[in-house]
Amino acid sequence: MISSRVSSSARACARTSPIRQMQRRSLATVSSSLFPGEPSAPHLVTRAIPGPRSKELSDRIGTFQENRAHGFVVDYGKSQGNWIADADGNVLLDMFAQIASIAIGYNNPDLIALAKTDEFITATMNRAALGSFPPTNWQELVETGLGTVKPKGLNHIFTAMCGSCANENAFKASFMAYRARERGEQAQFTPEEMQSCMKNQSPGSPDLSILSFTSAFHGRLFGSLSATRSKAIHKLDIPSFNWPVVAWPDVKYPFSQNARENAEAEKVALAAVEEAIVSSKKGGSTYGPVAALIVEPIQSEGGDNHASPAFFQGLRDVTKKHGVFMIVDEVQTGVGATGAFWAHDKWNLTSPPDFVTFSKKMQAAGFYHNIDTRPSMPYRNYNTWMGDPTRTLQARQIIRTIQDHGLVQKTDDVGNYIHSQLAEMITNGAGKGKIETLRGENAGTFIAFDGKTAEVRDKLIMEMRKQGVHMGGCGDKAVRLRPMLVFEKKHADLFLEKLEKALGQL
Amino acid sequence: MISSRVSSSARACARTSPIRQMQRRSLATVSSSLFPGEPSAPHLVTRAIPGPRSKELSDRIGTFQENRAHGFVVDYGKSQGNWIADADGNVLLDMFAQIASIAIGYNNPDLIALAKTDEFITATMNRAALGSFPPTNWQELVETGLGTVKPKGLNHIFTAMCGSCANENAFKASFMAYRARERGEQAQFTPEEMQSCMKNQSPGSPDLSILSFTSAFHGRLFGSLSATRSKAIHKLDIPSFNWPVVAWPDVKYPFSQNARENAEAEKVALAAVEEAIVSSKKGGSTYGPVAALIVEPIQSEGGDNHASPAFFQGLRDVTKKHGVFMIVDEVQTGVGATGAFWAHDKWNLTSPPDFVTFSKKMQAAGFYHNIDTRPSMPYRNYNTWMGDPTRTLQARQIIRTIQDHGLVQKTDDVGNYIHSQLAEMITNGAGKGKIETLRGENAGTFIAFDGKTAEVRDKLIMEMRKQGVHMGGCGDKAVRLRPMLVFEKKHADLFLEKLEKALGQL
Repeated sequence: MISSRVSSSARACARTSPIRQMQRRSLATVSSSLFPGEPSAPHLVTRAIPGPRSKELSDRIGTFQENRAHGFVVDYGKSQGNWIADADGNVLLDMFAQIASIAIGYNNPDLIALAKTDEFITATMNRAALGSFPPTNWQELVETGLGTVKPKGLNHIFTAMCGSCANENAFKASFMAYRARERGEQAQFTPEEMQSCMKNQSPGSPDLSILSFTSAFHGRLFGSLSATRSKAIHKLDIPSFNWPVVAWPDVKYPFSQNARENAEAEKVALAAVEEAIVSSKKGGSTYGPVAALIVEPIQSEGGDNHASPAFFQGLRDVTKKHGVFMIVDEVQTGVGATGAFWAHDKWNLTSPPDFVTFSKKMQAAGFYHNIDTRPSMPYRNYNTWMGDPTRTLQARQIIRTIQDHGLVQKTDDVGNYIHSQLAEMITNGAGKGKIETLRGENAGTFIAFDGKTAEVRDKLIMEMRKQGVHMGGCGDKAVRLRPMLVFEKKHADLFLEKLEKALGQL
Repeated sequence: MISSRVSSSARACARTSPIRQMQRRSLATVSSSLFPGEPSAPHLVTRAIPGPRSKELSDRIGTFQENRAHGFVVDYGKSQGNWIADADGNVLLDMFAQIASIAIGYNNPDLIALAKTDEFITATMNRAALGSFPPTNWQELVETGLGTVKPKGLNHIFTAMCGSCANENAFKASFMAYRARERGEQAQFTPEEMQSCMKNQSPGSPDLSILSFTSAFHGRLFGSLSATRSKAIHKLDIPSFNWPVVAWPDVKYPFSQNARENAEAEKVALAAVEEAIVSSKKGGSTYGPVAALIVEPIQSEGGDNHASPAFFQGLRDVTKKHGVFMIVDEVQTGVGATGAFWAHDKWNLTSPPDFVTFSKKMQAAGFYHNIDTRPSMPYRNYNTWMGDPTRTLQARQIIRTIQDHGLVQKTDDVGNYIHSQLAEMITNGAGKGKIETLRGENAGTFIAFDGKTAEVRDKLIMEMRKQGVHMGGCGDKAVRLRPMLVFEKKHADLFLEKLEKALGQL
């Protein structure tokens, strides 16, 4: 199953702009060169998916582990490029990509080749406690990998384990930097702080808060879950911090056709943000002073909700004005899918956010920041592993493959194509009266639309599976497209053809 | 650097007890068979460690990432078995093992061979969203790996990312199960619960708590940090849940020579635990009802603090009596280092704990539990990755290598030898008046002792480095031994020889 062929360009060191331009001209050949054996059509062998073998394996897993969220059981060895193979031998076009976390295709030859290198094997099987005993290649590895895609204006990196953990460590860094600023640069911790924190009480454990938006999703551990507002089922029965929430702007789609109303809605939300911050600092709120605001460039799990660059500029302005850190959660939007490497690149902010968090498609997790939010002392934001060298190496290769093949630009182009075709299908085609509210104008393949009802959405996803296309939902009734960055026009055409058929079956 | 030789026993499937007995007889040969090129003495080339090359690399890392907690920079490719090589070419006997997280030696040939298998490469480079799209081999992989070391009485497994995340997910499972019991089996969530949780307010976000002990360490994310009480520096400036703490029994060492006083001290702690639980349930406390108690078998980061099996049986009894879940945090104690696979195996509890959490030496993380603490619905304790297939495969091989070579029994034997030698050294030898308070009787190589002062401890660790032995501290003034499971009598003798010399230098 596993090929060790490496595209020669993946090994190239020079990444000059003429080369990149040349690569752009050969876009059409990317997936056929990386995945010469990629199927051209779904291969369906069971009447329903999950088929009997998937069900049997899932049931067996169920004897020792939660299995009720299983979609189907996957044969990863047989999956290739954009195509996912299941335990029964079905092969589907994958537009969900392990919940938006596979960047450059299954069994990408560049990654398979990486796995066979001594550097990779040594790093994986001798896992370093990176914060204390980093490997000799760590500086070079980070600088030639994660370091090459530092968001504009951010020069430091904190490596972590997953999206929740990335966000929580950014929260911790925010709280420490916020208190350091209050305390003054030379000030020491007071005995009262040292003692009270051991009892989880203020002033050592201060009553500070993180501001987030309705329908936001920032993770599921105790801090990140307190900032998550997408669905009750994530939050029920779990103790939470009393942190504030502000309503996401009530915008209308197509976004650009409702520019005036949307600007108004965003103004309302910005005013609410400022009010929440100001009242917290005056002691006029039930929650403590807001130390940081966290926001997704496009709210993903919460239903693919958009806002304009002006809104995010407004958030940057209001947080700066009131000394609140701004955390941009790019766990799902990052690494190219929106047609920019970072979704927030498209905002052209006048000053950078304080933190940009990442995970999923990067495989590695963590956040970018600046020296001003590095804690005052070592061991304050620390743990045994501080990330994973395996995933750091993988991230570097993913970034290189993306750059070598111009996959961000390609995703932008393919996304624009899909968006325009879907707009037509919804207005005048097979989608009319069945699907609506298209999102993702100028957002690469990060596209979504709603079913007329949740039931229609659920049926459509199941019908698409029967057509050989694997998709995911989000929010209450949305279908979200989350293909990989190697999803090309030919895949888009196949998707559109199958969608038309599936809509006809509803 | 990397050898693909695999010990033939590592491939053996039969693990019958006669075979294991035979393996025990050949203990002395384990490290020489696994690591034929292992050094017999330290190799020191720089006057101090970190040497100039380590410092230079660390400084470069410091330009983009926290480097103030660096010990030295490591050449993992050149490290072998119990020996760690640094960037300058120094080779030290490693008794810290990446903060107690390397189980079977650097560049263990069994792991290197695993890394080269198609199964491993496929799993690593096509990372599954395990909760929804598990791989076809998942059931077999877990059942033949993590499943073979299920603690007695626990039949279910939750896979996670790291120790903090394992503990936090166990907290979440506790809270959900606690509320499910209160609610009654058939009851649905009320509209009030559904709405209030979206505002982080009760009853949907209930005011429940986790009880932990003074000097406990359970992690550094927001929930786990609220249960951590080891050092102020971990907790300062971070908002915490108002969760209760009870004083760890004030025991004396050597433990068995102070049996009567220690039993009294444990009684005091048990009474305080019961009082904290009872008052929380009556509404007579500032914190909410205690849903779970979390405890380490040996408090590790907090200073290697011990208690007796009777104490832990008492905790099991009092938690059972009051409907509180018991979480045993085996993140540092698990996987053989205490001379049992799980440290709590030695307690012979009359009924099992509700959760046993693991990470570190297992490389994989998560917890064992039973079906009664599986949430009522899917997606409640869930995330994108739900662990890491790479580390699950690695865990299986680590478990197999441990079993094939009888490494748990060997660690028990070597630990007893070290403990008796240290006792003698402290009472009548080079340690007299310099080190004291030896812990770890009958606890494998999980041994610690205090420096007379924190300064003596710090000097001793630096002096040991000059002697070619790499060690770690914990608590205020303790040295903790955390060698790997391939640490044998010959390594112990070398350590004791170097310790004697180092003490002579103080």
